[in-house]
Amino acid sequence: MSFDVDNLKYNSDGLIPAIIQDVNTKDVLMMAYMNKLAVEKTIESGETWFWSRSRQTLWHKGETSGNNQIVRDIFFDCDADTLLVQAEQKNAACHKGYFSCFHNKIQEDGTVIIKGEKLFDPGEVYGKKK
Amino acid sequence: MSFDVDNLKYNSDGLIPAIIQDVNTKDVLMMAYMNKLAVEKTIESGETWFWSRSRQTLWHKGETSGNNQIVRDIFFDCDADTLLVQAEQKNAACHKGYFSCFHNKIQEDGTVIIKGEKLFDPGEVYGKKK
Repeated sequence: MSFDVDNLKYNSDGLIPAIIQDVNTKDVLMMAYMNKLAVEKTIESGETWFWSRSRQTLWHKGETSGNNQIVRDIFFDCDADTLLVQAEQKNAACHKGYFSCFHNKIQEDGTVIIKGEKLFDPGEVYGKKK
Repeated sequence: MSFDVDNLKYNSDGLIPAIIQDVNTKDVLMMAYMNKLAVEKTIESGETWFWSRSRQTLWHKGETSGNNQIVRDIFFDCDADTLLVQAEQKNAACHKGYFSCFHNKIQEDGTVIIKGEKLFDPGEVYGKKK
């Protein structure tokens, strides 16, 4: 079967969710949305591109921080409406400085703890705005 | 910090995407949507519950196939708009018989191959309709 970017199922906003997983640790790093162009640019460039819903613009992961994701493998699911991208994460994926965006763990007693260490200072990387 | 299901960010349909990861292999198994009640039932029961957008009903994963997911840990991301559930997958997650729904691999030459083996026969498990 030949891959066709038009055969993926995009939602009513033209977006498909993409789960990014670190290829070495297998940690789930983040979930973000791609439009068709972002899928194409991710495949062509070998680095991840997304559609920023808040800024309504195409977004190259790491363009400010340098924390790019080097794509190793791309999968789509049985419904062709979600992508899984396995990538090499440079430094850390989360804009808050953690390796994974999923660092908030809900514990059995109903409290939330942070799991993981800060690998960079967001203030230094992004400036005072963050 | 205490966890409050109302502090998660649900989309305009009242849903939050939930990534399910096998706790043993660290394979990403599937992505599905939970409403607030599904989040509560997942936490209370220790098994995954979702909202089926196609059937517009609450859905207990494995209710037909027996392929339940026993919850080990739940995380939410930095934006509190996506969940990551680490679970023990019974048998296989995908309704097509594969361990993971993400079994369609896009290769560098533009072809798609199936990665993984069928662990059950969907026809036998779900009947002729699937």
